[in-house]
Parts: sequence; structure tokens; C-alpha cells
Amino acid sequence: MKLYSYWRSSSSYRVRIALHLKRIPFEYEAIHLLKDGGAQNAPDYREKNPGRTVPMLEWTDGGELRRLSQSMAIIEYLDELHPEPPLLPRDPLGRARARMLAEIPNSAIQPLQNLVVIKKVKAELHGDGQAWARSWNERGLEALEATARPFAGRYCIGDSLTIADVFLVPQLYSARRFGVDVSRYPTLARVDAACAEHEAFQRAHPDRQPDAEP
Amino acid sequence: MKLYSYWRSSSSYRVRIALHLKRIPFEYEAIHLLKDGGAQNAPDYREKNPGRTVPMLEWTDGGELRRLSQSMAIIEYLDELHPEPPLLPRDPLGRARARMLAEIPNSAIQPLQNLVVIKKVKAELHGDGQAWARSWNERGLEALEATARPFAGRYCIGDSLTIADVFLVPQLYSARRFGVDVSRYPTLARVDAACAEHEAFQRAHPDRQPDAEP
Repeated sequence: MKLYSYWRSSSSYRVRIALHLKRIPFEYEAIHLLKDGGAQNAPDYREKNPGRTVPMLEWTDGGELRRLSQSMAIIEYLDELHPEPPLLPRDPLGRARARMLAEIPNSAIQPLQNLVVIKKVKAELHGDGQAWARSWNERGLEALEATARPFAGRYCIGDSLTIADVFLVPQLYSARRFGVDVSRYPTLARVDAACAEHEAFQRAHPDRQPDAEP
Repeated sequence: MKLYSYWRSSSSYRVRIALHLKRIPFEYEAIHLLKDGGAQNAPDYREKNPGRTVPMLEWTDGGELRRLSQSMAIIEYLDELHPEPPLLPRDPLGRARARMLAEIPNSAIQPLQNLVVIKKVKAELHGDGQAWARSWNERGLEALEATARPFAGRYCIGDSLTIADVFLVPQLYSARRFGVDVSRYPTLARVDAACAEHEAFQRAHPDRQPDAEP
């Protein structure tokens, strides 16, 4: 399997965590989102992934080339094909809650603070891109803290890792970059610290990727 | 089951489609997102759903009150509990592709054009909210058209309805409201027309809801 990734992309970071948790070996293909107008906008990449996003997973299956984009779809797929360790609880309500918590970074925070959006806020609306990104992180993390609190144990849902943790840790990494004080979200900060002890989370960290910059 | 919904909310519309497709009876509780600062921001709703979003599903389960927000999590839950008709293909790759296509509206279009974001663009950045919403719809639908084309039959993935269609139809409804010419996306427009023939999609349409306004 080959993962098209950018070191600081929080969506790529999610898939890296899932791959390492499941001990799936993969080749790392760096897509520089900033240099020369962004490698994701180059015609050859765009042909592979019209969404012009990372992450994208690529593999061959009985001689056929397969490609999959969108971190949530990729992680659900990996969890179906490589069920151990599971990233979703066994019971439907637990699974639903894990997905609900993952959806807050996935659809209520990250989309509003990704590079393309910040660029548009700055270039077209002459706004402060950092302040924009910070405010959506704060609003979303406040919601996530309150939503997760009743379910959290060592991790977001009780004491087993789930997809909720896989989405939380990269979001807190982004939030810090935008100047958010994550200690204001004590449940999330505590879960983040617990995840950081796992080798899989450590190996997936942006600073450990081949395309990391000083 | 009770669904907290707003007639024009595209995320609520997705869940209404799923409920009607699966013939699950539900009570409709309207949350007016605009009047008096928005019912979603009232303390009693915020306590139920700290994310201040619709849709939210509420039910009792052995005497216990349960609540679930986030349309993707709700729909996956409904599909697990009420498997007929299935909203995901049987094979893992098909399931992954359906989720990938659903993720484009879910995490690349709708979050950028929801009411809260448009409000911020207008009030804080003095931008044109309609133009902002239109541009993200166009960018996202272009990606969705190109991504869906190789898999589409009568519907987004072959000839069976999936979660990809459940997310597509409400997005095209929103796109039209923002002035997007959806005929520019021939695959999507064709699938939309096929979905419109289903009673479940008709019953879920914004204009058919109890809180619809003329």
C-alpha cells in the first residue's frame, strides 16, 4: 500500500495512525501542499484524485490498481479489512458514539481550517487566516469536549482506542499550531496525553515523517 | 424516534431520506435555525447537543434516553440497526467507495456553506456569503462528478442506492439555492433525477416538512 501524505496534514495524520495501529506496512509518498502551487494541483495527481486532497491510499488488488481518498472512508475500509485492533466498539451504540465524536473534527473543524480555505480567507476576503482557523478550532473543540465528557475513560469512548481518538489527536496538533490553548479542554487533553504513549501515535506524528521540515 | 430537524438543513435532509428509505417511523421536532438567534443556540437544546447542530436523533432504549448527532454517524447507525434496504454495498471496496463519495458533501462542501460560516463571512469579513457558498459547492461538485463518474450507474455506485446518493441529493438542493448550475455535473444531475423518483426522497424533501416556509 502506498499512502500519499503531507506531514502536517491532519487528515493524513489520521490515516497514518490507523495504519500504524494495525501494523500495516506502507510506502510513503510525500505530496507537498505548498511548494510550486501545491503538488495536489498538478495534473498527474489531480487525475488520480480529482478532489486534490491528501490522504490518498493506492494499492493493487488482483492486478487492478485501486485508489481511495477521504480519511474517514479509508479508515473504515482499513478497519473492515484488518479488524485487529478494532477502531470501533462492538455494540452499535458505541460505534455510533465513536463515529459521532470523530465527525466533529472531520466535518465541523478540519474542513474550515484547511489550507485552501485559509488561503481564500486571506487572499479574497483580506481576513486573518490564523484567527479564522483558531476560532473554528475553539468552537469545535468546545463542542467535542462537552460531547465526549460523558463517554470518556482513558480514551474518548471508555478505555479502548477508537476512531474518535484517531481523529482527535491530529485535530489537537492543528489547534496548537493555530495558537489554541488545548488545556481549556481537559477531557480532550487527557485523552491526547494517553494516546501519545502509544508507539503507533508516535510513529504517525508529523515530525517523524520523511517530508517533515524543521 | 424523534428527529430534531430544520427543513432546509441539508444534513437533516440526509437523515430524513435514510429514515424514509428504511421506513422507520419518527416524530419531527423543528429547530428553527434563524428565528430569535436560532433555537439550536438556546440553553435547553445546547444541553442536549453541545455542537448546536441539526440533525439530532433521540430515542429511549430500555428506559434510557439516547441522543445522537452528526448525520454520518446517525445514518451508519440506522444502517446497522435496520439493514434493509442496505445503504452500503456488500463488498468492502464498494462500501469504501460509497463512503468516499458521501464524504465529499459531508466534509468538503456542506461544512463550508452552512449558516454559521456564511454568517461569519458576512458579518466579520464583510464578504459575499452567497458567492462564498457557491464557490465551495462548485469546487466540491466538480470533484464529486469526476470521482463518481467511473462508478456510477443509475445511482452513484452502480444500480443500487447507497449512502453516496443520500448525501448527494441534499447537496444539490443546497447548491441550487446558492445559484449553482447543476447541469454542469451530468453524472450527478442524472443520479439526482433517478433518486427523485423514489417516494422516500420525495417525502424527505424540504418543501414537504412541517416547518417548511413558503
